[in-house]
Amino acid sequence: MLVEEITKLVQDTATSEVFGVWFLIGAALVFFMQAGFAMVETGFTRAKNAGNIIMKNLMDFCIGTVVFVLLGFSLMMAEDYVMGIFGVPNLDILTDFGGFLAAGNAPSFVFNLVFCATAATIVSGAMAERTKFISYCVYSAVISLFVYPVEAGWVWNSQGWLAQLGFHDFAGSAAIHSVGGMAALIGAIMLGPRLGKYVKDKSGKVTKVNAIPGHSVTLGALGCFILWFGWYGFNGAAAWDGASLASIFVTTTIAPAVATVVTMIFTWVKNGKPDVSMCLNASLAGLVGITAGCDSLDALGSAIVGVVSGILVVVVVEFLDLKLHIDDPVGAVGVHFANGIWGTIAVGLLSNPAAPAGLEGLFYTGSAKLLGIQCLGIFAILLWTAITMTITFVIIKKTIGLRVTEEEEIKGLDSTEHGLPSAYADFVPAVESLDYGYEDAVAVTGDAPVAEAVPVKKVPAFVDDDSPKFTKVEIICKESRFEKLKSAMMDIGITGMTVSHVLGCGAQKGKPEYYRGVQIEANLLPKIQVDVVVSKVPVRTVIETAKRVLYTGHIGDGKIFVYDVENVVKVRTGEEGFDALQDVE
Amino acid sequence: MLVEEITKLVQDTATSEVFGVWFLIGAALVFFMQAGFAMVETGFTRAKNAGNIIMKNLMDFCIGTVVFVLLGFSLMMAEDYVMGIFGVPNLDILTDFGGFLAAGNAPSFVFNLVFCATAATIVSGAMAERTKFISYCVYSAVISLFVYPVEAGWVWNSQGWLAQLGFHDFAGSAAIHSVGGMAALIGAIMLGPRLGKYVKDKSGKVTKVNAIPGHSVTLGALGCFILWFGWYGFNGAAAWDGASLASIFVTTTIAPAVATVVTMIFTWVKNGKPDVSMCLNASLAGLVGITAGCDSLDALGSAIVGVVSGILVVVVVEFLDLKLHIDDPVGAVGVHFANGIWGTIAVGLLSNPAAPAGLEGLFYTGSAKLLGIQCLGIFAILLWTAITMTITFVIIKKTIGLRVTEEEEIKGLDSTEHGLPSAYADFVPAVESLDYGYEDAVAVTGDAPVAEAVPVKKVPAFVDDDSPKFTKVEIICKESRFEKLKSAMMDIGITGMTVSHVLGCGAQKGKPEYYRGVQIEANLLPKIQVDVVVSKVPVRTVIETAKRVLYTGHIGDGKIFVYDVENVVKVRTGEEGFDALQDVE
Amino acid sequence: MLVEEITKLVQDTATSEVFGVWFLIGAALVFFMQAGFAMVETGFTRAKNAGNIIMKNLMDFCIGTVVFVLLGFSLMMAEDYVMGIFGVPNLDILTDFGGFLAAGNAPSFVFNLVFCATAATIVSGAMAERTKFISYCVYSAVISLFVYPVEAGWVWNSQGWLAQLGFHDFAGSAAIHSVGGMAALIGAIMLGPRLGKYVKDKSGKVTKVNAIPGHSVTLGALGCFILWFGWYGFNGAAAWDGASLASIFVTTTIAPAVATVVTMIFTWVKNGKPDVSMCLNASLAGLVGITAGCDSLDALGSAIVGVVSGILVVVVVEFLDLKLHIDDPVGAVGVHFANGIWGTIAVGLLSNPAAPAGLEGLFYTGSAKLLGIQCLGIFAILLWTAITMTITFVIIKKTIGLRVTEEEEIKGLDSTEHGLPSAYADFVPAVESLDYGYEDAVAVTGDAPVAEAVPVKKVPAFVDDDSPKFTKVEIICKESRFEKLKSAMMDIGITGMTVSHVLGCGAQKGKPEYYRGVQIEANLLPKIQVDVVVSKVPVRTVIETAKRVLYTGHIGDGKIFVYDVENVVKVRTGEEGFDALQDVE
Repeated sequence: MLVEEITKLVQDTATSEVFGVWFLIGAALVFFMQAGFAMVETGFTRAKNAGNIIMKNLMDFCIGTVVFVLLGFSLMMAEDYVMGIFGVPNLDILTDFGGFLAAGNAPSFVFNLVFCATAATIVSGAMAERTKFISYCVYSAVISLFVYPVEAGWVWNSQGWLAQLGFHDFAGSAAIHSVGGMAALIGAIMLGPRLGKYVKDKSGKVTKVNAIPGHSVTLGALGCFILWFGWYGFNGAAAWDGASLASIFVTTTIAPAVATVVTMIFTWVKNGKPDVSMCLNASLAGLVGITAGCDSLDALGSAIVGVVSGILVVVVVEFLDLKLHIDDPVGAVGVHFANGIWGTIAVGLLSNPAAPAGLEGLFYTGSAKLLGIQCLGIFAILLWTAITMTITFVIIKKTIGLRVTEEEEIKGLDSTEHGLPSAYADFVPAVESLDYGYEDAVAVTGDAPVAEAVPVKKVPAFVDDDSPKFTKVEIICKESRFEKLKSAMMDIGITGMTVSHVLGCGAQKGKPEYYRGVQIEANLLPKIQVDVVVSKVPVRTVIETAKRVLYTGHIGDGKIFVYDVENVVKVRTGEEGFDALQDVE
Repeated sequence: MLVEEITKLVQDTATSEVFGVWFLIGAALVFFMQAGFAMVETGFTRAKNAGNIIMKNLMDFCIGTVVFVLLGFSLMMAEDYVMGIFGVPNLDILTDFGGFLAAGNAPSFVFNLVFCATAATIVSGAMAERTKFISYCVYSAVISLFVYPVEAGWVWNSQGWLAQLGFHDFAGSAAIHSVGGMAALIGAIMLGPRLGKYVKDKSGKVTKVNAIPGHSVTLGALGCFILWFGWYGFNGAAAWDGASLASIFVTTTIAPAVATVVTMIFTWVKNGKPDVSMCLNASLAGLVGITAGCDSLDALGSAIVGVVSGILVVVVVEFLDLKLHIDDPVGAVGVHFANGIWGTIAVGLLSNPAAPAGLEGLFYTGSAKLLGIQCLGIFAILLWTAITMTITFVIIKKTIGLRVTEEEEIKGLDSTEHGLPSAYADFVPAVESLDYGYEDAVAVTGDAPVAEAVPVKKVPAFVDDDSPKFTKVEIICKESRFEKLKSAMMDIGITGMTVSHVLGCGAQKGKPEYYRGVQIEANLLPKIQVDVVVSKVPVRTVIETAKRVLYTGHIGDGKIFVYDVENVVKVRTGEEGFDALQDVE
Repeated sequence: MLVEEITKLVQDTATSEVFGVWFLIGAALVFFMQAGFAMVETGFTRAKNAGNIIMKNLMDFCIGTVVFVLLGFSLMMAEDYVMGIFGVPNLDILTDFGGFLAAGNAPSFVFNLVFCATAATIVSGAMAERTKFISYCVYSAVISLFVYPVEAGWVWNSQGWLAQLGFHDFAGSAAIHSVGGMAALIGAIMLGPRLGKYVKDKSGKVTKVNAIPGHSVTLGALGCFILWFGWYGFNGAAAWDGASLASIFVTTTIAPAVATVVTMIFTWVKNGKPDVSMCLNASLAGLVGITAGCDSLDALGSAIVGVVSGILVVVVVEFLDLKLHIDDPVGAVGVHFANGIWGTIAVGLLSNPAAPAGLEGLFYTGSAKLLGIQCLGIFAILLWTAITMTITFVIIKKTIGLRVTEEEEIKGLDSTEHGLPSAYADFVPAVESLDYGYEDAVAVTGDAPVAEAVPVKKVPAFVDDDSPKFTKVEIICKESRFEKLKSAMMDIGITGMTVSHVLGCGAQKGKPEYYRGVQIEANLLPKIQVDVVVSKVPVRTVIETAKRVLYTGHIGDGKIFVYDVENVVKVRTGEEGFDALQDVE
C-alpha cells in the first residue's frame, strides 16, 4: 500500500468507527428529549392533568416503538422502495435478526425510531388537558405507524423522491417538526379550546381570552434545557466527520441563543416585561429553525434564523390565541409548525457553500433552485400530513370520540382517565378561578327551589350572666405583616392564634400582567387570616393593637371581624371557658 | 505488513480507542442514573421525607465510593483472585497510582463503582420513609464494601467461578438488580410497613390496605426517563464493537417499550383505567429484564422479555402489597428483584446465536445447558445476598436499630433526621388522611378528663338597638362555580370577600379509584369557602343569589352558613361597623 | 512505511478522531450544566422568584453566546495575541465561516463558550431574589464579553502569560469558578442582604440571622446530580488520550464523594444532624476543588482535596452568613470562590508526577515552584476580576440600579419583573414568616386613625323561640388524629364537616432546627381545623367525643371553639335550618 492509501484507510476507518458510536450516543440524547417534552408539556399545563400528560409522553414512545417495529421502519427505510414513495414492509427485525444486524440496520432503526417518537410527541402538547387518552393512543400510533414513516422516507431514504430531488432537511425541521406541528394544529382545531379558555357572548363571539398558567414554570424550564441539550444529539447525530459535527454544534448553539435574546427584547418592548415562558419557547423555536440547515448554514445564517424564529414564535402564539382562538396550551404550533416551515425555507435562502454541507443558498449564490426545492418539499410534506391527520382525527371523532366530557375536563384527566386523585397528593391545590360556564347546562334542567322569604330565626343560647364573654377576633391582612402582628399579640398577652392562608377578593385589583401575551386577571390576592379568641384580654386592645401594627395607609391594609364565641374547650386539660384560654399551649 | 494485517490493525486500534472512551461515557450515564433513582424514589413517596430520600441517594454513592476505594474494588476485580471467589484486597489506587493507571484499572474502577452504587441505591426505595438514616449509611456501606463486590466478582472478574462456568449477565440483571431487589425485600420485611399502610383488627389480621400516593408523579416520571436514558450507558458501556452496541440499543429500547404497553393494557383491563405510576414502573421492569441478555437476545426475544416484565411487575407489586402485606413504597421488589431473576433466566431461554453475544438459548437450540447455568448463578447470587444482608440487618436492628420512632415517622424524616422543616417550604402541605393509630398507645396512659355536663354559658354583648346588624355568610361550594359566584356577589353590591380552600368531608364519596392496584378512599373533596360579611345588603339576598348561582340539582352543590358578627374594623381608615363595609377595598 | 510508523499513525489518528468527538460531547455535557445551575439556584430560593432565576440562567447563556461571538471568543483565543494579555478582536466566525472551520476554531468556540457561560451563571445564585433583571443582563454580558475572556486567555490561550509561566488549571478552578465566585461575592456585598435575612437593632448591629429555606430541595438536589454528571464533561472534555480521561474520571469521582461524606459527618457532629442542603453543596465544592488538578492529582490527592473542600464549604458558608452577614442564598461563594482558590493551590501541593499531567507538586517532589506559580496565577485572576467587576457593579448601581425596590422584593420578582403571577399557579403558597420590617417606613407617613373606644355594639337577630338552635363546633387538632376524629364524628351522627389546613401559633415551640447552620424558628405548627355544624346532635356530645378522640395528655392536643350559627342553607334542596343539616351530602 502507498502511504496515501494507508493514511486514507486509517482516517476513514477511525472516522467511521467514531461516528458509528456517536450516531448511537446521539440517538440516546434524542431519546432523552422525551423527558424534555414531558417536562415542558407538564410544566406548562395544570397540575390536575400532570399524570395524564406524563402518561401520553411515555406511551407515544412505547406504542411508537411497537408500531415502528411492525411497520414504520420498513415503510420508511426498506431497501425495496417503491417509486420513491414508500418502502415495502418487511419484518426482518423480528424474523431475521442476524441479517438485520449484518445489513447495518440496527443503528438506523434506533436513530429513526427516536426521531419518529419526537414527531409524535409534539402533538400531545397542543392537545393537552382535554384529549381522551384512548384517542391519543390511537392517533399517536397512526403517526408512528404510517404518517411519519412515509414522508420521512421521502426525505431520508436515499431513494425517496424528495431526497432524489435534492431536498435538504438535515435533522428534520420539515420531516419532524413541521409534521408534528401540523398534526398539532389540526388536532387543536378539531378538539376545540379548553373550557374556560375563551369566553363567548350569545352570538358565539369571543369576548375575553383567559390565560391558563402552567403549574410549574420550573419543570417547564428544566424540560427546555433538556431539549436543548438533547438537540446536540438531534442535529449532530448524523454528522459525518469532525468538521461537520463542530459546525453543527456552532449553529445549533447560536440560533436558539439569538432567538431567545430577540424574544426577550420583543416581549419586553411589546408587553413591558420580558416574558419567561415565551423566552423558553423561543429557545425551542430557534432550535427547530436551525434543524434543517444545521450543517448548511454558517454562524451568521444561524443568527438570522434565530432572529426570525424569536419573533415568529411570539407572533404565531399570540395570533393563534388572541385572533384565531385556537387553544394550544404549550405553544407547539408556534414552535414546531411555524419554525419547522421557516427552517426548511431558510435552507434555501441562507445555505453557505462554505459550510460542511456545501449547499448553495439564494443569498450566497443568487440561485433560487434550492429554495424552490425546499418550498416544494415542505408543501408536499404538509399536504400529506394535513390529509392523513385530518382523516385520522375525523375517524376518531366519529367513532371513539376525541375529547373527554366537560365534567372530566373540569375534574382533571389524572383522576378521570387514570384514577390518580392527584399527581401532587401532598400539596394543597390553589383555587382555580376559571369560569367554566359548564354547570349552567345542567342547571337549566331544573330551577333552584325558591325558599319563602322566612326571617332568619334564632334561639338564644342558655345565658348565664356570671360567665365571662369570649370573643373571636379575625384579622385578614398581608402576609408580610404577620411577624409584626404575632409579636404584638404576644406582647398584649395572647398566647395562641390560628393562622391560615386565604385569598382576598375585591374591587382592589393588581396591575394587569401578561402571560404569553394574554392579560391575567389578578383579583384574588393572597392574604393571611389570623384568628384570636380572647376573654381576659379586652377585644378593644386586640383591635387597636392590630390596627397599629397593620396600618400603612395603603389599600390592602386589611379588615378585622369580631365574633361572639359560646365556649372554648382545651383538649389536653379538659378545661372549658375562661380557663381554657389562660394556659400556654 | 500485509494489507490484511494493516487493515486489521487499523480496525482494531480504532475500535479499541472508540470503545475505551464510550466505556467512560457509559459510566457517566450510569452515574446520572443516581439522579433518576433519586427522583423516582422521592416522587413516589411523601413530601415530608423528600430531603431524607435525596440524602440517602446522595450518600449511598458517596459512601459507596469511599468503601469501594478502600476494599470493594480489589475484592471484586483484583488480579490476585482466590479460588474464583474473591480478590485479595490491595490499596494500589491510593499507594501506586501510576501503576494503577498503567495496568488499565482506572476505567474499570469508575465503571464498576457506578454499577456498585446502582445496586446499593435500589434498596433505599423499598425501605423509604421509615429507616433510620444512620442505619441506612451502615447497610449501604456494607453492600458496597462487601456484599456486592464479592458476588459481582463471581460474574465479572474473568477468574470468577460463575464467569468460568459460562454464566451470562451482560449488564447485571442478576449481579446488580436481583441483588439490590433481594436486599430491598429483606429490608422491607424486617422494617415492617409504614404506619397507616395496613389497618389490622385485634387479631392482627390486615383488614384494609391503604394507598399512600407519592408527592410528585412528575418528578417520579422524570426519574424514569432519566433512568431509561442512562440505561443506554448501563447496558451499552461494555459493548465491544459497533454491531454489539447497536444491537444492545435495539433490545434496550424494545423490551421496556413493550413492557410499558403491556402494563398499560393489563392495568386498563384489570382496574378499568391505565395506571400511570405502574406504567412508569413497567418501563423500568422491562429495562431490568433485558439487562442480562441485552447483547444475547434478538428483537423478538426482547419483546418477549418485555411482555413478561410488564405483567410480572404488576402482579408482584400487588401480591406483595395486597397479599403478603410487605410495604415497598416504590415497587423496588417488583421491578428489580422479580425482573432481575426473570432477565437472568431469559438469557437461558431466549438467547439467539445470531445476536452479537452468540449464546445458545433453549428456544433457539433446544439446549438447556445455558439455562441451567443461569439458574445456578441466580440461585447462588440470591443465596449469598440473602445470607449476608439478613446478618447485616439483624445486627443493625439489635444494635443501633433499623427504624425511626413512630413519632419521627409521623412527623417526617426530613425534620427529625435532618432538621429540615420542609423540603417545600413555600407550599401549604395537604391534610394527610392516614389513620396512624399511633397516639392511642399514648392515650392509654391516661384518660381524657371528664367535664361535668355544664350548660354552655354565654354573656350577651352590649346591645345597642340603633346600631345595624352585621352578618357573615359562609358559602361552601365547588371550585368550578367560583367565578360565577364572585360575579353574582359583585352584582348585588358586595365589594369584598375572603376565599379559602377547604376539604368537604361527608357521606358523599367519589368513585373508587385505584393507585397501584390499591383502592383509594376519596372522601375529602376539595371545596372552596367564600366568606362574605354584609350589613346593608340583606342576608336573604346573598343567600338567594348564592343558591341561584350554585344550584345544579346534583349532590355537592354546597351549603351556606349564616353567623352573627359583632363588629367590623377596616384597618386603613379606622372605620368600624357599617362604614367599614361600605368602602371598596 | 515502517511498522512502527504505521502503528503510530494509526494510534494517533484514532485518538485524534475519538477525542475530537468527545471534546464536543463534553461541551454538550457542560451545556447541560446550565440546567443543573438553574435547578440548584431555583430550588434553594423561594417560589416567588423561581421564574426570575430560571430566566436569568437562560439569559446568561443566550446573551453570553451573542457577546462571545461578537468579541469574547477572539479576545480570548485569537492567534494574534498581544503581549500574552489579550487577543486582537476579529469577526471571522461571522465573516469567514469557511476559514473559521478550516482553522479548527469551531470546536474551540463551542467548548470555550459553554465554559464562559458557567462562569457567568455562578454569579446569579449569590445575587438571587433581589437583583434587577436588566442589571443582571448587563453585568452578565460584561462577564462574557470581557472579564472572563481576558483572564481565561491568560490561562488557556497557549500564548497567555500564565500559560507561558506553567500555571496549571486544567478545567477552571481558577479561570471559571474562582472568577464566578469572586464576582458573586462582590455582587452579594454590593447588593446587601435580602429583606428579612438579618434583623438589626437600632445601632445597626445584627441581632438575629434568619434562615430562608429554599422552595424545593428536590429540584436543588436534581440540579446537583445534573451538575456532577455534567462535570465529567467539564473536567474530561480536554483529555488527550484514554489514560488521561480515565484518570480524570477517577479524580472527579473521588473528590466530591469524599467531600460529601466529610460534610455529612462535620454537620452531624457540629449541629447534631446531617444537613441535606449542605451535603449537596459539598458535592459541588469537591467538584470545584478537583477541577484544576483533575489530570495532575492522583486518587489520594483527590481524596485530600475532598476532605478540605467538605470542611471549607461549611465553614465559609456559615462564616459569611453568621459573622460577615453577607447574604449568599445558594452558597455560591463557599462553593465556587473558596474551593476555586483551594483547587488552584492544591495543584501546587498535591500534583503527582505519575498522574497523566506529570506535574510536580510540593508534597511529592519537595519543589515549591509550581505552588508559587499557582499562587501568583490565582492572585492575578482574582485581582483582575475584583477590579473589573467592582467597576461594573458600581457603574450599574449609579445608573440603572442594582436592586429591585423593597416592595418588588417582597412581592417577588416573578410578578414584578416578568408579569408572572406565580411559577406554581396551581398550589397554595405557604404563609411566609419573615419580618420584612418594610412597611413601617411607609407607616411613618401617617398614623393609624385612632378610634374612640366605643363599646362593641350589637343588634340581636330576630328571635323565634320555637326554632332550633344551630351551633358550629370548630376543632383545631393535629393532622394525624384526623381519621380517628372523622370516624368518631360519623358514629355520633354527623354527616358533614369542613376540613382545612391551618397553622397553630403559640408559645409551644418545636425544637431548634438548623438549616445551613442557621437556627430556624418553627413556631407555626401545622394543624387541621375541622368545622362541624350541629343542631340535632347535642353540642356536648360533639365536644366530649372530640375530647375523647384527641386526648393524649401531651401539649398540642388542640382546642375546641363553639359558635352560634344563625342559619344553614343547603343549596341543592333549598332546605334551610334544621332540615338542611339532616340530609346526607
